[in-house]
Amino acid sequence: MPDQPDLEQSLPDIVLEEQGLRDGLQSEDKLVPTEVKLSTIDALVDAGLRRIQVCSFVHPRLVPQMADAEDVCRGLKPRPGVTYTALVLNEKGVQRAIDAGIQHVSASISVSDTHSRKNTRMSLQEAQKRYVSMVQLAKAGGLTVRGGLQCAFGCRYEGTISHQRVLELVDRHLSLGVDELALADSTGMAHPGSIQDLVGAAMERAGDRPVALHLHDTEGKGLANALAAMQVGARFFDTGFGGLGGCPYIKGASGNIPTEDLATMVGQMGKTTGVDIHAVVRITDS
Amino acid sequence: MPDQPDLEQSLPDIVLEEQGLRDGLQSEDKLVPTEVKLSTIDALVDAGLRRIQVCSFVHPRLVPQMADAEDVCRGLKPRPGVTYTALVLNEKGVQRAIDAGIQHVSASISVSDTHSRKNTRMSLQEAQKRYVSMVQLAKAGGLTVRGGLQCAFGCRYEGTISHQRVLELVDRHLSLGVDELALADSTGMAHPGSIQDLVGAAMERAGDRPVALHLHDTEGKGLANALAAMQVGARFFDTGFGGLGGCPYIKGASGNIPTEDLATMVGQMGKTTGVDIHAVVRITDS
Repeated sequence: MPDQPDLEQSLPDIVLEEQGLRDGLQSEDKLVPTEVKLSTIDALVDAGLRRIQVCSFVHPRLVPQMADAEDVCRGLKPRPGVTYTALVLNEKGVQRAIDAGIQHVSASISVSDTHSRKNTRMSLQEAQKRYVSMVQLAKAGGLTVRGGLQCAFGCRYEGTISHQRVLELVDRHLSLGVDELALADSTGMAHPGSIQDLVGAAMERAGDRPVALHLHDTEGKGLANALAAMQVGARFFDTGFGGLGGCPYIKGASGNIPTEDLATMVGQMGKTTGVDIHAVVRITDS
Repeated sequence: MPDQPDLEQSLPDIVLEEQGLRDGLQSEDKLVPTEVKLSTIDALVDAGLRRIQVCSFVHPRLVPQMADAEDVCRGLKPRPGVTYTALVLNEKGVQRAIDAGIQHVSASISVSDTHSRKNTRMSLQEAQKRYVSMVQLAKAGGLTVRGGLQCAFGCRYEGTISHQRVLELVDRHLSLGVDELALADSTGMAHPGSIQDLVGAAMERAGDRPVALHLHDTEGKGLANALAAMQVGARFFDTGFGGLGGCPYIKGASGNIPTEDLATMVGQMGKTTGVDIHAVVRITDS
């Protein structure tokens, strides 16, 4: 199984977490065989990606594409410096992750009550209660936990969410002991101004703990938002090769920022991602 | 015919020049009838666009889509505060623009000798000579002239072009008396770093004269580059409704920045473009 991640060791300037295999595939109709997933993961590592979200532990009836999560985890090759991570949605998912031997999980809740009810059938309060149990279970199981806030930059139902409310949730996440934070622009409503305000404030609160951005390319804003975040010091970004991804429950949501596009822009700006862009393009095209 | 443009009067924070009808249509196979062009121009004005490139004066054999340039100009309705502009490629085009009664033209040359030879069959030196004649003819004819530099941020054949070389050409343009400058990322090689360096320096040289950016959405960088330019004070951007456009002679070149996307981002950031985004989306969809 993969090594425990050491986030601060020999990282590139900008760290991309590849989510095409999870966030991307869950939107695809055709089931991708486990061995294809595993060979793609291998190719992504060969292409220089050091953080890869390999699956989600979710009920197979809800997301059939992820029914082989355990098989995927079993097939992962330990590769030096590489963190494999899985998305978990509830305590059962956390337990499955522990049992499957994955050492890093992402858990998240929405900052919007309406989005929470539509996406998980739980109120924000219920979701928070469950979230606390999940994080506690994961930490007790020795996992590294990334805690995420969905709709951090706005909700299609509730509109803009006040930064004060988001930052209160950031504080709560941090006090729960999550190892990393993630702010997700689930709806594509983030813009460079809100990115700089909120990410700057969240990073200040998080101190040494990484704050990742999960941005979508809605209305072409993906890289502009990433640029704005980098300008206030953000280093961790979720991307999907070929721009795969996007929430199936949010109307008009676009895909993730394409891994190759963010890596290209960062490279042109003289910073490193460690990613071989041509190799990622070959994976996208295959 | 349209009024003489007054660029500094009652402009929004960010001024979009709609180029979908020229840069966009020249890449389309199907001929668009003159009356459809005219009704689209009307709709774009109704949608709040105040600068519209309506045609290019180019040989109809080269670009059949623009064979009706005179008819389009004849059909333009004078609308308060609206500048209609045309692209000109040579002296003959300038004379046609004067005869057609259009009062604002865009002329440009490449900063790359190789691109110039491939695109115009002229060396950079020959192109510059012709360019001087064009600007002189246009100014003598009472036209307002925007002088543009193609491939300002790099050339697929020659790679990065030194900023010193580009700025020398900027100085030459300014000394010729052009009323506005435009820097074109014809190849999509611009990135936020090069944008800020070059646009900042060009704006300093241009003083009161507007410096417009003609950016393409290559590798998703369109809005990131626009953001970077706005951060150093740029206000004038070329866009194309629906992202139409792109040089047919440059491999891998993407379309223009979509008008609706830039207007959306600018609006979200609390600045004005004067553009009704929903109205532009309706034009794109029709």
